[in-house]
Amino acid sequence: MKIAIIQFAPLIDNAEATLNKLEQLLNKCNDSELIILPELANSGYNFQTKTEAFDLSENISGRFISFLQQFATKLKAGIISGFNEREGDKLYNSAVFVDKSGVIGKYRKLHLFLNEPDFFEKGNLGLPVFEYNGYKIGMLICFDWMIPEIWRKMALNGVDLICHPSNLVLPYAQSVIPAYAIVNHIFIATANRVGTERGVSFSGQSIVANPQGKVIGRLSPEKEEILKIDINLSISKNKEITERNHLFNDRRLDVYNDLK
Amino acid sequence: MKIAIIQFAPLIDNAEATLNKLEQLLNKCNDSELIILPELANSGYNFQTKTEAFDLSENISGRFISFLQQFATKLKAGIISGFNEREGDKLYNSAVFVDKSGVIGKYRKLHLFLNEPDFFEKGNLGLPVFEYNGYKIGMLICFDWMIPEIWRKMALNGVDLICHPSNLVLPYAQSVIPAYAIVNHIFIATANRVGTERGVSFSGQSIVANPQGKVIGRLSPEKEEILKIDINLSISKNKEITERNHLFNDRRLDVYNDLK
Repeated sequence: MKIAIIQFAPLIDNAEATLNKLEQLLNKCNDSELIILPELANSGYNFQTKTEAFDLSENISGRFISFLQQFATKLKAGIISGFNEREGDKLYNSAVFVDKSGVIGKYRKLHLFLNEPDFFEKGNLGLPVFEYNGYKIGMLICFDWMIPEIWRKMALNGVDLICHPSNLVLPYAQSVIPAYAIVNHIFIATANRVGTERGVSFSGQSIVANPQGKVIGRLSPEKEEILKIDINLSISKNKEITERNHLFNDRRLDVYNDLK
Repeated sequence: MKIAIIQFAPLIDNAEATLNKLEQLLNKCNDSELIILPELANSGYNFQTKTEAFDLSENISGRFISFLQQFATKLKAGIISGFNEREGDKLYNSAVFVDKSGVIGKYRKLHLFLNEPDFFEKGNLGLPVFEYNGYKIGMLICFDWMIPEIWRKMALNGVDLICHPSNLVLPYAQSVIPAYAIVNHIFIATANRVGTERGVSFSGQSIVANPQGKVIGRLSPEKEEILKIDINLSISKNKEITERNHLFNDRRLDVYNDLK
């Protein structure tokens, strides 16, 4: 599957300019089957007030999702993007998966970082996995990287590729993601943002890791740029890591199933 | 706590020479509080037959454990070592923790790699954690590195340091261990062996990782040598990784507690 990560900086004070920028970047991805954007790509991250976060949010039938669907149709691709989602009077730090047919699915961030609970509700859609072009795709968002259980749970649910829209400030996640890829024998694509927003700088270095835990693509720490790579997702289906070892079946659930 | 990793190569065909070698190495650790040796340090790894594995095994009151206890007393240190353990007519790939008072505890490898089931039973002692000098110490062995649940379970059980005697052939574990250290906010010390034994080469590169996921000590791929480092184990007790994030309490066990 030909995937593309768009590493860019949304403009928190100018949604129109953000869309214009994204339009140019998306138009460079007409050879990709799946395009992945960072967390909160429609709004930026560092809200000053709940009111501002609300003003910069959109619901699932809003302009940003229509914009993504329009490009999904034009590019004949799936697009996964983080977005500031409004539902009624609640906000969620969400990721959406669209193609030409519309919204394939959504994920809402389960683990909120630092001050995010001032703006967002905790995710309430579980850990869905979606079929796409014969493979199983899941989404996790940014700080979710800290919790090994969710990466494992998604792998147990059969995911081949986890797309990971992010607004990472530090570069720690980029060193842990390859470990999750190897111990779960899956592909992971972390789409991080760049730039400085109201004094907060983001760490870029978007990566793709393969089931051998190898980083097979990495972007720079600061530039807006696109990572394109062709990955063989069928590799992830084989959990027999030696002729006598199976990644899941070898587990001693009698000893550690309860992780409370 | 001042710890020392002894990276060395046991001699599979000469237990006497192995002890002589170990004696010299241990005598260099008289400034350490805890000394960690590789997996199967009393026997070597690559057995040709079950009979050979049996002949090279020792029970918990055998010569190897007495040897370790003698040095623990002399050096005023704890010693953790992998050993080929015999109990009745069964063998276990075990780790033992001794100090001057005797055997503090044992762990038996839960996840056997490739052909190890031809020689060893699966571990049957769970995931014990032992108090030592005010801190909680656990043991895992080599291929256990592949299973994120056990590292998590030990962290949930309050472990501050996991000692990880190993006979790693490939260098993958050394890239995953720092990830387990950061996502569980613990110290991990991997004591790997070196050398080539009957055509199998081991990857050395013993490491110590801290709760920030940083490798704070690393040995060479091939040399017999000692890694000494003073680590502040009290750091691992604080799981509040930001003022509003707790590594364990933030988990959404409603979503992923069942990892079957």
